[in-house]
Amino acid sequence: MDLKGVYAPIPTPFDNQGRIHWKALDGNLEKWLSSPLDGLVVGGSNGEFPFLSFKERVELTGCVARKTAGRIPIVTGIHCPSLNETIALCVAAAEAGSDAVLALPPHYYKGQNSTDSLKSYFWAIADSSPVPVVLYNMPSNTGFNLSPECVKAISAHPGIIGIKDTSGDIVQIARLCLESHPGFSVFVGSGGFFLAGLAVGCTGGTLAVANILPAACSRLQKSFASGDIQAAREIQHRILILNHAVTKGYGIPGLKIAVDGIGLCGGPCRAPLQPLETEKANEVLRLLFETNLLDKEEWR
Amino acid sequence: MDLKGVYAPIPTPFDNQGRIHWKALDGNLEKWLSSPLDGLVVGGSNGEFPFLSFKERVELTGCVARKTAGRIPIVTGIHCPSLNETIALCVAAAEAGSDAVLALPPHYYKGQNSTDSLKSYFWAIADSSPVPVVLYNMPSNTGFNLSPECVKAISAHPGIIGIKDTSGDIVQIARLCLESHPGFSVFVGSGGFFLAGLAVGCTGGTLAVANILPAACSRLQKSFASGDIQAAREIQHRILILNHAVTKGYGIPGLKIAVDGIGLCGGPCRAPLQPLETEKANEVLRLLFETNLLDKEEWR
Amino acid sequence: MDLKGVYAPIPTPFDNQGRIHWKALDGNLEKWLSSPLDGLVVGGSNGEFPFLSFKERVELTGCVARKTAGRIPIVTGIHCPSLNETIALCVAAAEAGSDAVLALPPHYYKGQNSTDSLKSYFWAIADSSPVPVVLYNMPSNTGFNLSPECVKAISAHPGIIGIKDTSGDIVQIARLCLESHPGFSVFVGSGGFFLAGLAVGCTGGTLAVANILPAACSRLQKSFASGDIQAAREIQHRILILNHAVTKGYGIPGLKIAVDGIGLCGGPCRAPLQPLETEKANEVLRLLFETNLLDKEEWR
Amino acid sequence: MDLKGVYAPIPTPFDNQGRIHWKALDGNLEKWLSSPLDGLVVGGSNGEFPFLSFKERVELTGCVARKTAGRIPIVTGIHCPSLNETIALCVAAAEAGSDAVLALPPHYYKGQNSTDSLKSYFWAIADSSPVPVVLYNMPSNTGFNLSPECVKAISAHPGIIGIKDTSGDIVQIARLCLESHPGFSVFVGSGGFFLAGLAVGCTGGTLAVANILPAACSRLQKSFASGDIQAAREIQHRILILNHAVTKGYGIPGLKIAVDGIGLCGGPCRAPLQPLETEKANEVLRLLFETNLLDKEEWR
Repeated sequence: MDLKGVYAPIPTPFDNQGRIHWKALDGNLEKWLSSPLDGLVVGGSNGEFPFLSFKERVELTGCVARKTAGRIPIVTGIHCPSLNETIALCVAAAEAGSDAVLALPPHYYKGQNSTDSLKSYFWAIADSSPVPVVLYNMPSNTGFNLSPECVKAISAHPGIIGIKDTSGDIVQIARLCLESHPGFSVFVGSGGFFLAGLAVGCTGGTLAVANILPAACSRLQKSFASGDIQAAREIQHRILILNHAVTKGYGIPGLKIAVDGIGLCGGPCRAPLQPLETEKANEVLRLLFETNLLDKEEWR
Repeated sequence: MDLKGVYAPIPTPFDNQGRIHWKALDGNLEKWLSSPLDGLVVGGSNGEFPFLSFKERVELTGCVARKTAGRIPIVTGIHCPSLNETIALCVAAAEAGSDAVLALPPHYYKGQNSTDSLKSYFWAIADSSPVPVVLYNMPSNTGFNLSPECVKAISAHPGIIGIKDTSGDIVQIARLCLESHPGFSVFVGSGGFFLAGLAVGCTGGTLAVANILPAACSRLQKSFASGDIQAAREIQHRILILNHAVTKGYGIPGLKIAVDGIGLCGGPCRAPLQPLETEKANEVLRLLFETNLLDKEEWR
Repeated sequence: MDLKGVYAPIPTPFDNQGRIHWKALDGNLEKWLSSPLDGLVVGGSNGEFPFLSFKERVELTGCVARKTAGRIPIVTGIHCPSLNETIALCVAAAEAGSDAVLALPPHYYKGQNSTDSLKSYFWAIADSSPVPVVLYNMPSNTGFNLSPECVKAISAHPGIIGIKDTSGDIVQIARLCLESHPGFSVFVGSGGFFLAGLAVGCTGGTLAVANILPAACSRLQKSFASGDIQAAREIQHRILILNHAVTKGYGIPGLKIAVDGIGLCGGPCRAPLQPLETEKANEVLRLLFETNLLDKEEWR
Repeated sequence: MDLKGVYAPIPTPFDNQGRIHWKALDGNLEKWLSSPLDGLVVGGSNGEFPFLSFKERVELTGCVARKTAGRIPIVTGIHCPSLNETIALCVAAAEAGSDAVLALPPHYYKGQNSTDSLKSYFWAIADSSPVPVVLYNMPSNTGFNLSPECVKAISAHPGIIGIKDTSGDIVQIARLCLESHPGFSVFVGSGGFFLAGLAVGCTGGTLAVANILPAACSRLQKSFASGDIQAAREIQHRILILNHAVTKGYGIPGLKIAVDGIGLCGGPCRAPLQPLETEKANEVLRLLFETNLLDKEEWR
């Protein structure tokens, strides 16, 4: 498996009773599969994984795998508080049809993380995993950064094929690209630095904003690849503020409003995430329209 | 229930296969119950809760409750990634005999935490809980600080009876004491600022170091209460460096070495926590003996 | 010289043209000298030292020295961007009558600070200084923390007699007290943790709030020394919120409003510090009165 | 004046007595002026400005202005602790021949910085300045970040023509580019994210590493401008580790070793900066040669 292109870390739709809304998910997937997306991430941070049960996480993967039916790869977020549960979920997700898995570093006892302990942690996962493992650096949520030195040591395992870096530290990302061996891919973790990441050597990205503007994100990467930096930069600039609103700014509640806004089903979040206040929801919709990119999202 | 005195947040002993070592736990409890400890915290951060299953967490509480048999109160850590699971564990822990529960703020999506969302989160727990709820501020692990303004709003619920603050921000702790209403207790969360916390109005503490030196911690508080600041300060100074080693310095692996060192059973940690290297383990033991407090721990 | 008791880090009064208002300073000093203050800090952070010329800083010390005439010690802030200038100001301040000097670590190139470079820096000052040197840890302004390990190395110089620690990290302050040799004093750097600092072994404090409530601060320390913790804690609680407003909250503009509020001359700040908006100024005055401590400040 | 291309923030050479080594500076300038550099920054962070007197800073500008004689623009760092001194230095630097000035935000009382106070600060400078003003965001040294909102407000002044951003926050830099009006340029502040900055819209950079590898830095930008991203990325990757060593890693002592290493005069730093230990100095030289870029620096 080769990590490449634009992946959408899909949100998990819930109904008003807070149950997974399978029908809505099905409808969303139909749309996304007609978009230029190159892959999907299921049960990741944008999928509210901490609020899903083990069983729900496996079922989600199964549902998405059946729907995609191999047309594009799917990657499942497998982080659980303990290593044992993480490995169990990894195996179950692979059995349910996931093409790869996405694994956070352990972070509650972050003060005790060391290169050795992390290598041992990720290798234990990779040793047990039937599918390739992608590292997941997400310091704003975990409070812990996977350093390039650490990634270098961990990535010596042949089953570990890449990293999604959400840190936004572009020097770190450049260094990951510089030091990665053939077969190890570096993936941009947020739409705010997609172009910058591509410039320094990333092969693609997993972008919350790709749930809403997959065609734009795809065009950004293709323009860049063809040497048309101006076109790529223009798209990057247009999605910059919206991207902030659907990530750090208003989080998943913001993302779901935008997903609703393009005619798919975002729906409510699980507690303790709160519905966005009307004013903020309107701001998200306004930013969405102000990108002037919606009319080119013909798959909708 | 009145939070007062010295509580030990007990570590969970495992055998060499990584299973809970019930017999060792029983032996440890026997010792601690003959010490001057005023309470126990079960399945807290020092108990490696993220690496325990739901079932194990409930069983731990049950085991400790049977053993203490009401002689001293026990408080169970109930944090799970989702609110639903947290509430379920809260109820189960209470049924298993816990006198109160200790609840962290949600923290994976920390960027979306607000006073409103946190109030709603903790009130949902307190509304469902058969026993009193204690807030648990642990920013070095969660990456999120419960501010005094937020605590003030949350603590209006009659079922929320106190907070354990591990931040070490003594101005914040003083403010919590100043602003707390009658019936709301502020508990020091680490042995490094036990005396300082008592000075500004805390009613006691939950201290990792109290697993090892309960008599010293108890004497510190009693000396302070009787106005003998010199004696209290001397104990505080003596435990300062050891306390660091068994908390931020070497974490639970350090604590367990010290628990072994006093003749109880610390034992190994669960992965990804690693055994302490010999040199560091020896340093912990050296610091333990250098406190010159061991000979007064007659309960051992 | 023995660092002990309550010191006020006096603000520098300016007239409406931004010149030092010598007459107002004289009036303020007369008042402060009739209060129970144990010492004064001149040209410190609260004295707006970065906005004073070298000449003004020396003149300020001279003016205060003449006025105090040896009744209480005065300590002059000597930090300049370069070591050479700092030493020159140190010598000039001593000649102008300062009893000791207060020296920040260099901090623009904080990334290159090491125990060795800092020891060499402070020893160069102490070697040249006609008067004792007090270290000044002020991480919220400098972005750099002087660690206990570093202080231990630096304090081996006999001319370095103490440290003012404004970090608020009470574990660090306790450790400074524990590890300090005879003749090295640890001074609390802010009114928010005065009681906590005394509890762990500080000999006094340099407190912005002591410019306004010197009698209360002095009574806090005396109550503590006599074993009356309740009385000390009550004063600590009463000054807590006001202290925040005149330090981190509203800075020197807040402090000067409060100085005006007790009938001395605070006056305007130099640019880029801005006058406090009316609403905030009124809040400072309200907090001042709400301490219920003003009527016991009989020296006014 | 149009900020564009590669600027070198030149270090200030000192002799063994710590005096400015004018002859060495002259030699360095001769070399740099035969390189493809597009501009010079004098008395900036890499020029050890905090350790230079007002007079030295003006003389440095004068010396560089006479030598460059208008062939390329020079920009002088004017930050002083107070606004008055900063304005005085600004005027003196302009009179001495500087084409523009570089101004940091005030940062000792960073807690009191607001958009209003900063706008008022920078506009006071721009109102008095005979030459254009460039903002200088340097959070790792100042501990304060100039936010895009703040820059937007400040940049409404016609005399403020750009910003050098050293934060490395590429999303922020993209936003500065997106929101900047015509005539306002965004300059990359460190060689580690030069390519990423160009990708998102920067017009050039002020790069410590450009003192050593000006031809490489220039080629990076030209390759990028011509659409040859591969070539640009290869240079970016090659300078990445060296760049770290001569900036955050080993600071100005590291930079000066590298300047010595290419045959110009780096020389010693002023106290409290310490000479690099031999091992680290050798590492810098090794990293310099490992770039494999030296042989194309034909101007040397």
